[in-house]
Amino acid sequence: MRRIGIDLGGTGIKVGCVSQQGEILSKVSCPTLAERPYEQVIDDMANLARAAAAQANVDFADIASVGVGIPGVEDVRTGLVPFCNNLGWRDVPLRAALKERLGKQVYVANDATVAALAEHVAGAGKGYDNLVLITLGTGVGGGVILNGEPFVGAHGVASEVGHMTIQMDGVLCNCGNRGCWERYASATALIREGREAIKSAQGSMIVRAVDGDPDKITAKTVIDCAKAGDPVAVRLFEEYAYHVGLGLANLVSAYDPDIFLLGGGVSAAGDFLLDEVRKTLKKRVFYQDMPYAKVELAILGNDAGIIGAAMLRG
Amino acid sequence: MRRIGIDLGGTGIKVGCVSQQGEILSKVSCPTLAERPYEQVIDDMANLARAAAAQANVDFADIASVGVGIPGVEDVRTGLVPFCNNLGWRDVPLRAALKERLGKQVYVANDATVAALAEHVAGAGKGYDNLVLITLGTGVGGGVILNGEPFVGAHGVASEVGHMTIQMDGVLCNCGNRGCWERYASATALIREGREAIKSAQGSMIVRAVDGDPDKITAKTVIDCAKAGDPVAVRLFEEYAYHVGLGLANLVSAYDPDIFLLGGGVSAAGDFLLDEVRKTLKKRVFYQDMPYAKVELAILGNDAGIIGAAMLRG
Repeated sequence: MRRIGIDLGGTGIKVGCVSQQGEILSKVSCPTLAERPYEQVIDDMANLARAAAAQANVDFADIASVGVGIPGVEDVRTGLVPFCNNLGWRDVPLRAALKERLGKQVYVANDATVAALAEHVAGAGKGYDNLVLITLGTGVGGGVILNGEPFVGAHGVASEVGHMTIQMDGVLCNCGNRGCWERYASATALIREGREAIKSAQGSMIVRAVDGDPDKITAKTVIDCAKAGDPVAVRLFEEYAYHVGLGLANLVSAYDPDIFLLGGGVSAAGDFLLDEVRKTLKKRVFYQDMPYAKVELAILGNDAGIIGAAMLRG
Repeated sequence: MRRIGIDLGGTGIKVGCVSQQGEILSKVSCPTLAERPYEQVIDDMANLARAAAAQANVDFADIASVGVGIPGVEDVRTGLVPFCNNLGWRDVPLRAALKERLGKQVYVANDATVAALAEHVAGAGKGYDNLVLITLGTGVGGGVILNGEPFVGAHGVASEVGHMTIQMDGVLCNCGNRGCWERYASATALIREGREAIKSAQGSMIVRAVDGDPDKITAKTVIDCAKAGDPVAVRLFEEYAYHVGLGLANLVSAYDPDIFLLGGGVSAAGDFLLDEVRKTLKKRVFYQDMPYAKVELAILGNDAGIIGAAMLRG
C-alpha cells in the first residue's frame, strides 16, 4: 500500500510517495509561485503526485490516497480552504480539484497537524496516542493527535495554540490580540528580546557575536551564546524557555497529552531547551502529584510534511 | 435500561436512578461527613444506590451501570482517586470499592466532566458532539465532550481549564501560579473586584446595596446593580465578562467546540452575561472568517451531577 503526501508551502511544493510505515520512497518538488491562479498550483501538485509515484516505481492506480498539508485550514463543513498563509488563497476547493485531477481520495489538513501525525506514525511520537507537536519557528504552531487521530475540532480550527493568550495586556500580535503565546515562544520573540537586551549589554559575548548590530541577531546567536555561558544570553534563553514551558502547562490543562514534541528552528537548541522547558512545566502543572506529559524533540524535520500528509485518512 | 448516577460532593452525596434518556426517576441523598474514613462514605454511596433503584421500582439486578462524579480526578492508569477537593481523600480505590459493594460496572469522572456529559445527553448540549461546559462558581471548572465522548486526556487531568494562565504576572492563584483564568472569571474574582471598586465609588448604587460594607458584596450584588444600570457595576461586570470571553477564545484555539455552555453561580446573569461574552469571543477568535462555537447557558443545574454520572461508560 503506497500513498502520496504533498507538503504545500508558500515557496515550494514537495511531494513524496510514502509507504504504509511512513517511509519516503521518492521525493519531487517545484516552486509554488503562489501568485499564479490556484488552478495552476493544483495542476503542479497533481503532476508531482504522478511523478512521485513513477519515481518510486509504483503504478499510480495502486496509490491508496493523496494527502495535503497546507499552511492554513480546511473548513470541514464546506471542504473549502478559506485562506492559506502566504498563498493569498480564498475559498479554494483544493480537495475537490485535486480529486478531480487524480481520481483518488484526497485529504487536506493544517501543516502542523500533518507534522504531528507524521511524528505519531514514524517519528518521536511512535507509541503515543495523545501527542501535541509544537513548532517553535517564526510563529508557534500546534498539531494535536488524540486517541491516535488528528484532532481538528468541530470547524477545523482546533490546535491553533500559538494564539492562546498568556498575557492579556502583553505584546501586540499580528492577529490583532495582545499577549498570544506565539509572541513569547517563537524564534521571533527570542530575536526581539535579544535585540532589546544587547542595547544594555556592552562588552558581553552576544554583543561581540553580532558586532554590536541588533539586526544581526538570530535565534541561533542567542542559543549559541547561552550555551557558551554568556550571562546575557543565558538570561534571555531561560526566560524564553520559561515562556515555552508556561504554554505547555496550559496545554496540559487542555489536552493532557502523553507527550509534547518540540519542532521548528528553536528546537535545534536540543537538550538545552528541553531541560529548561521541563523545569518550568514541572513547576506549573496543576496536578503536581499526577503523571503528566513528557517533553521531547520532534525528529522528522522537513520530511514530516510529506510523511504526515500521506498518512491522512477520512 | 436504568443506570445509577452518584454526585459526590464535599457536603452531600446525591444519588439518582436515571433512564437511558437522562431522565431522573428517583433521587435520594445524605450528608457526606467527609471526615469519616472513606470506606464509610462509600458504604453510604452503595446504600443510596440501592435505595434509589428501589424508589424508582427498579430491581437492582436490572441496573446497567453505576457512575460517580467526584470533585477530583481518577488516575486512569491506577484506577485510584489521588485526591478529592474538600474530602481529604488520598489514593482512594473508589471504583473498585464500589464495584465490590454493588457488583456492577462502576465509572468515575470529574464532576465538571460529568456535568458536560449530562448537558450533552439531556440538556443544552443535545445534538452537539463537541461541547465545552464552563462552570463559573467559586472557581472555574471545565468539562469537555469531544466526538460525543467525555474527554479526560492521557492521565485523566485534561479540561482543568480554570488553571490556564491568561496573565503570566497576574493575580496569585491558590494553585501557586499567577494569572490563572479562574482568578479572573470566577464568582470569587467578581467579588474581589467589587470589593476593590466600591472603595472609590461612594454614593453609587452598588455601595448603597451593601451599606458600604465590602464584605457584603456577592456576585449577585454586582450583577443586579449592573443590570439596573449602575455605572460602577456595569464596568465591573463588563470587565469580568471580557475575561470569561478571553478564556473561551483560548479554548476555541485548543478545542474548537461546537458550543460552549456556561454554568455555575454567575451564569444566573443569563443573557446579560452571554451578550458580553459573545462580544469578546467574536473579537478574539483567531480565524475571524471561520464559523466558531456558540455560547449558551447550561440548563440542568444541580441535576447535571446525577444525570451525567449515570451516563458514564467505559
